[in-house]
Amino acid sequence: MKITCTKEQLHHAVQIVQKAVATKTPSPILTGIYLSAEGNQLQLQATDYEIGIKCTIEAQVDEPGAIVLSGRYFQEMVRRLPGDHVQIATSQEDRTIKITSNFAQFNLLSLPAEEFPVLKPLSDENILTVKDNVLKDLIKKTVFACAADEARPIFTGGLLEADADGIRMVATNTHRLALKKDNLDNNDKTIRMIIPSKILSELARLLTSEIPVDVNIYWHRNQVAFEFEHVYIISRLIEGQFPDYNKVIPASFATNITVKSSEFMDAVERVSLLARDSDYNVIKFSFKEDSVTITSNNPDIGKATETVPSHMDGNELDIAFNAKYVTDILKNINSDKLVFSLNTPLSPACIKPMDDNNYTYVITPVRTS
Amino acid sequence: MKITCTKEQLHHAVQIVQKAVATKTPSPILTGIYLSAEGNQLQLQATDYEIGIKCTIEAQVDEPGAIVLSGRYFQEMVRRLPGDHVQIATSQEDRTIKITSNFAQFNLLSLPAEEFPVLKPLSDENILTVKDNVLKDLIKKTVFACAADEARPIFTGGLLEADADGIRMVATNTHRLALKKDNLDNNDKTIRMIIPSKILSELARLLTSEIPVDVNIYWHRNQVAFEFEHVYIISRLIEGQFPDYNKVIPASFATNITVKSSEFMDAVERVSLLARDSDYNVIKFSFKEDSVTITSNNPDIGKATETVPSHMDGNELDIAFNAKYVTDILKNINSDKLVFSLNTPLSPACIKPMDDNNYTYVITPVRTS
Repeated sequence: MKITCTKEQLHHAVQIVQKAVATKTPSPILTGIYLSAEGNQLQLQATDYEIGIKCTIEAQVDEPGAIVLSGRYFQEMVRRLPGDHVQIATSQEDRTIKITSNFAQFNLLSLPAEEFPVLKPLSDENILTVKDNVLKDLIKKTVFACAADEARPIFTGGLLEADADGIRMVATNTHRLALKKDNLDNNDKTIRMIIPSKILSELARLLTSEIPVDVNIYWHRNQVAFEFEHVYIISRLIEGQFPDYNKVIPASFATNITVKSSEFMDAVERVSLLARDSDYNVIKFSFKEDSVTITSNNPDIGKATETVPSHMDGNELDIAFNAKYVTDILKNINSDKLVFSLNTPLSPACIKPMDDNNYTYVITPVRTS
Repeated sequence: MKITCTKEQLHHAVQIVQKAVATKTPSPILTGIYLSAEGNQLQLQATDYEIGIKCTIEAQVDEPGAIVLSGRYFQEMVRRLPGDHVQIATSQEDRTIKITSNFAQFNLLSLPAEEFPVLKPLSDENILTVKDNVLKDLIKKTVFACAADEARPIFTGGLLEADADGIRMVATNTHRLALKKDNLDNNDKTIRMIIPSKILSELARLLTSEIPVDVNIYWHRNQVAFEFEHVYIISRLIEGQFPDYNKVIPASFATNITVKSSEFMDAVERVSLLARDSDYNVIKFSFKEDSVTITSNNPDIGKATETVPSHMDGNELDIAFNAKYVTDILKNINSDKLVFSLNTPLSPACIKPMDDNNYTYVITPVRTS
């Protein structure tokens, strides 16, 4: 192999595939980045078998070929290269890979390229196209609600659904649930799959274009792939039956409270400072006619209390929640006001941005003495 | 106690004393911040017995008194308080401490103030005054050379010396030594003390005034204190005999090489990428008539080589050093060019900024096969 490319594009590509490089693995080849050159392109890929990422950049290819380099060292080296251009070539003398940029030269030992599990693209039989900003928003507004605990695998992923009604993502750890919907023009495909939260987070991080671009979603058996710009990400799916989330969302509420989002958020964050230790991670809300008082009580540290103005339709109510479950959703509400909807102190409540029916968060209260 | 102060000043003071709050300690009282109010001042202090920090701010004192609050919670709370002003008062009802700001109210349990080891200022019998920027520079340019290993305690501190010739700080781990000198006007005091590197680093971090201010240094028996603006830091000294550093610095050199500092630094950093693992943390320098070639060789990863132009007075020479010991000093050289001075491949070398006799770094080479 012998190629020349710009340092900027190479650095960008290495940063993208780096996230799929395995760190702890019994297979040394998975700690590498696979580089293959053909036509006028250099393709980089890495996989830890959970996630696989490919990224293609332009290159002047003098000799096509494929090599594997240590992901860790290659990444740090590329970041620090001095010149605008980089040449990567297999040395004829000692089978090392010679990387040169201005007066800097590295000779890296290569890993055996034939051992690398080259990613196979999914067939394009099943394909759905969605804008990157739509997909990113679906992920960011739900993925935090996934379970961290691996005991019940289906809750460690987000459910992606699409049909004639639009596209939706749902995540829950059984104590709270986040649902985000969006429109999808002219869609005749139906999909329903559970994608690991780790892959969703990585995908959201990579969806950073400043002008909306198309993301093609492919799926086949227990795999899903996302293709956008020069990037291709492939992941396994989580198998199992996701619960019917429509049954979890209460159909009606006795009480609806409207508050200013940022004011409410700041107050909840302050009060929850004294509720952070796992044993006492509870904050109480006392909803009155024109205000809500938020309190916490940590026997080892002290008490916190704060009152914010609110508007109520319904009945006064005292209710308690896990503080983290409340702050998690408040961080994701972008509108000026939010609506907190309740029935009784022991039945699920709902938090929504005001005037937005596409984002719903259901939260189960905590029973307090 | 009952006081009112600005959130800004309180936050600033908490951040300063926070660094002396003990985290792992068998004495719970040391995890607290001691607040005492008198006249029109609020004083905060914390100590872990290694270091003690006091900070004084203005306050409207309605009732004088002293309390101790959990350092961790008090700090996080103050940071998030909503208003411009904060009221702190002992509650008459339940002996908690009531902290209010706008509509937020915290009632924190207090720790027993009478158990707090209140810091006693050193007598002002021994005092030396130095500008904060001078002291900060002395510390920053030497403290990194201290030993991390506690086996020989004197090398875990920096030696501060002052006399009619000026002020100096020296640090060494026996493999490399950094010496920084500065002038001191009209000084008739002689001091020579070894200050723990952890305290020096903390002190350098706190010396951040934009216009130079005076730092008063007090010492008595095995303690030293630094006083500036509203801050007072007290530390134990390290006991023992610091070696005569003048004997470590070679009197003359056979070869002097001049290079551009930033170009040399970048090349050394790139080459040392492949020398980072502890077993092979060695880079080689081949000094020629008009260039220096820097190389590393890590049998598990590969080789790196880079050549930078230089100017030589003396003889060509090949020599090897611990890569970290070289990059550590290069990060601290601010001038455009530096001088690398050498005798033989096995005798100590010296790195200095060009045209600056106040900063000297001595480094012992590594014997290679």
